Formats: sequence, C-alpha cells, structure tokens
Amino acid sequence: MGPGQWPADCHWPGDVTRDGHNPKVNDPIRPTESHAECFADLVRWRRDVRRFKTDAVPETTIDQLLALADLSPSVGNSQPWRVVRVKSADARAAIRKNFETANAAASNIYTDPQQRSDYLALKLAGFDAAPEHIAILSDHDSDQGQGLGRQTMPEMLDYSCVSFVTTLWYAARAQGLGMGWVSILDPNAAKSLLSVPENWHLIAYLLIGYAQEHHLDPELERHGWQPRTPRTTRTLDR
Amino acid sequence: MGPGQWPADCHWPGDVTRDGHNPKVNDPIRPTESHAECFADLVRWRRDVRRFKTDAVPETTIDQLLALADLSPSVGNSQPWRVVRVKSADARAAIRKNFETANAAASNIYTDPQQRSDYLALKLAGFDAAPEHIAILSDHDSDQGQGLGRQTMPEMLDYSCVSFVTTLWYAARAQGLGMGWVSILDPNAAKSLLSVPENWHLIAYLLIGYAQEHHLDPELERHGWQPRTPRTTRTLDR
Repeated sequence: MGPGQWPADCHWPGDVTRDGHNPKVNDPIRPTESHAECFADLVRWRRDVRRFKTDAVPETTIDQLLALADLSPSVGNSQPWRVVRVKSADARAAIRKNFETANAAASNIYTDPQQRSDYLALKLAGFDAAPEHIAILSDHDSDQGQGLGRQTMPEMLDYSCVSFVTTLWYAARAQGLGMGWVSILDPNAAKSLLSVPENWHLIAYLLIGYAQEHHLDPELERHGWQPRTPRTTRTLDR
Repeated sequence: MGPGQWPADCHWPGDVTRDGHNPKVNDPIRPTESHAECFADLVRWRRDVRRFKTDAVPETTIDQLLALADLSPSVGNSQPWRVVRVKSADARAAIRKNFETANAAASNIYTDPQQRSDYLALKLAGFDAAPEHIAILSDHDSDQGQGLGRQTMPEMLDYSCVSFVTTLWYAARAQGLGMGWVSILDPNAAKSLLSVPENWHLIAYLLIGYAQEHHLDPELERHGWQPRTPRTTRTLDR
C-alpha cells in the first residue's frame, strides 16, 4: 500500500464525504465546528453499557467498526491488536462463568457488609443479553514496527490495543450502539478459553449491542458507588 | 454532583447544541450520520505529529481538551489520570535529553547498518517546536472506584489513562491541533523530573501544537519504515 492510499477494508459512512469526494485518495484535513461538536457529543454519550437489548447487530456494522478502529494509534505503526469474535455458545458460557467467579472473589475484598452488599447489587456486565462478544488481545510476538518506540516502554504495545478499544467505543456510540468493557475476569484463564497463541495477551473482553437505556451519567455514579471527582492538573513551571 | 448533571468544568463547542439546548441537563442521546462521519474523519486524520509550528495554543483550548478527556472511560469510574502541564524550560530540556539518550540506545538494537541508519533518519518527536508539553500519569494510590473492576486486571488503571490520551488525541484533531506521543523515554527518570508522587506512573509524554503538515498516511509508512498491514480477526464459533 503506497503513501496516501487507504486500506481497502475501511468502509464507513464517511467514505463519500459531504462534499462528494472519496477519502481513499489523499484528502485535505479540514476539521469543522461539527467535528468538535459531534466528537464532544460522543464522549459525553459514551457509557459502559451493561443493559443490552438482544437485537442482532448487522455484520456490516461490526466490520465497519473494526475497520475504523484499525486506524487507531499504535506504537511504531505496529497494529498489535488481535480481534477474536466470540460466537461459540460454549465459549461464551465459559467466559461468563469466569466473570462470575472473579466477581464473587472481588466482592470479598469489601469487609464492610454494607459495601459488599452495595457491590453485589451492581450490574457489572451484560452477558445476559449482549449479542456481540469481542475479545481484543495484544500480540507480544509481532515484529511489526521493528521495535520502534517500545524499547524503554514495552507496555506501549498493550497501550496501542487500549487505543483500539477506545476508538471502537466511540465508533459504536456513533452507530447507536453501546459497549461494555468486562475486566472482572481472570485474564489468563479467559485467554485459554479463546484458543489464542501463547503470546497474545488479553486486553479487553467487550460486549456490544443496542443499549436498553441511555444516560449521560455513569452507571456507577447513578447507583451511588462512585461519583466523578474534579480533574487533578498540576503545572510545572520552574 | 447529582445524576444527569454535567461537570462544571466541561466547556466545549457542543455545550449549546445545534438544536439550541444545553447538554448540562439530561439530554437525549441521538447519534446522527454526522456523528459517524465526523468521528470517522477524525480517526482517519489523526496522526502522531512530530513537525509542529511554534504558534501558541490558546489556554482555553487546552482547558477544553482536558475537560473533555476527563469524561473518558475509567475502570470503576476511578479517573486515575493525573495531568502535568510541563511549562518549565529546564524540565523540558531535561525531558528532551532523556529522549535523546533513550533514542540513541534504541538505535543500537538495529545491528544491520542500513536499518540503523534508516532509524536514525526518522524524526520521532517534536521537541524542537511543540508549544505544549503535557504528561499523563496513572495514580496507583487512589481509592476512587473502591477497587471495582481491577482486582484481576490491575493494569486497568493504566489502561484508563490510555483512554484519556486517545480521547485527547481526537479532541485535539477536532480543534485543528496535532499531538505526538513520546514513548522513547526512560519512564522512571522522566517521572522524577516531573516531581510527582512515587505512585504516579508515567503513561504518556505528549507534545501538542499546530501541525506543519497534514497527511492521511502515518509518518512511519510514508518514510518507508512500517506500512499498515491487514487486520487479524478470528472467529471462535465452536
């Protein structure tokens, strides 16, 4: 693929832009007020969704979301993300059991009975209804990028995969979809269930579908677990 | 802050929406085709920028970018990101030296003389001109979130900070700004230079400013170091 050309598998509503030309060839970069407004909407609208409708998501939509996320930043242009679409009912059931075990163990860190009871009352994942299960893994064996940018911070490979997940999240919201990131899992046991190479490292287990409810405030705030707090910013000026 | 209210420090062009109401109160979530198109533009336009103009960025713009990024996903609503605006000339010089040392060491992994020479010819950071230096650190000591979602994957705190960086990147592009993520640093030495608490962990050192050039293709692809490759997606269906 030469400079200025576009990956053949990237199809998206933006493929033909509002002024009618095709961004697969080199295209001027012209952010407008709409870009800022629309992105701000998506950031405000994004939620960690745990209450899904069971309605199927069109396969073309999932393909578009993944193709767009494939343009996320990656250290040394390494694209270390590996995507596993989990469609097997057995694998889904095993992952859900992994979550339930990890969640029960996590509840035991709360020695205060009220806090433990509050924790157990939270709905922390949408396994009951989400139609799409997608695991994102970080390939620690890939030579892509020739090691650039990750000699002193090898975690940059995993961080690149997190950027992929974040891009996917906003892209999903732009399509009217919700996403939830399940991190209450034994990651190595989960990885084994996915039958992936030894050096693919689990970054995220994602549930995707249409949300049952829409909220501007985080679920954990709404249910009294954790409000937002003011941002901490320091200035180093001498 | 009650449910459905908006953080007081979040000001953004979207604060008054196109249909004239204020999203600080609970607002319907109505993604349109524009949201998908505009976000796809931002993802395609995002670059790791290393060639900046020296023009100053308005302080209100930086504040808006950080306020929006503060709405990024975080495990357990923990908001573990800590922001350090690096304005000190001495600190900037010391960070730049850290980069130069790490970069020289990184070049020595390339035993092939041509590959090493290609590496050294790449411009990998915009310290010479970028007007804004912002470090993002992950606070491993914070109790915010009460540990939720990170018992089996404690790296979720750092991953939340990466989501903050990714959001900031797209937000910057929407404002016509470029950002570069410098990862060729000794992160512990860099952290010491920033005079932060022991348990703040360096996630990213970011350079921000107006880009000298605009490209749809990654710099590392354009300069022949690493092209994009097709995405790897597997389906687990039994």
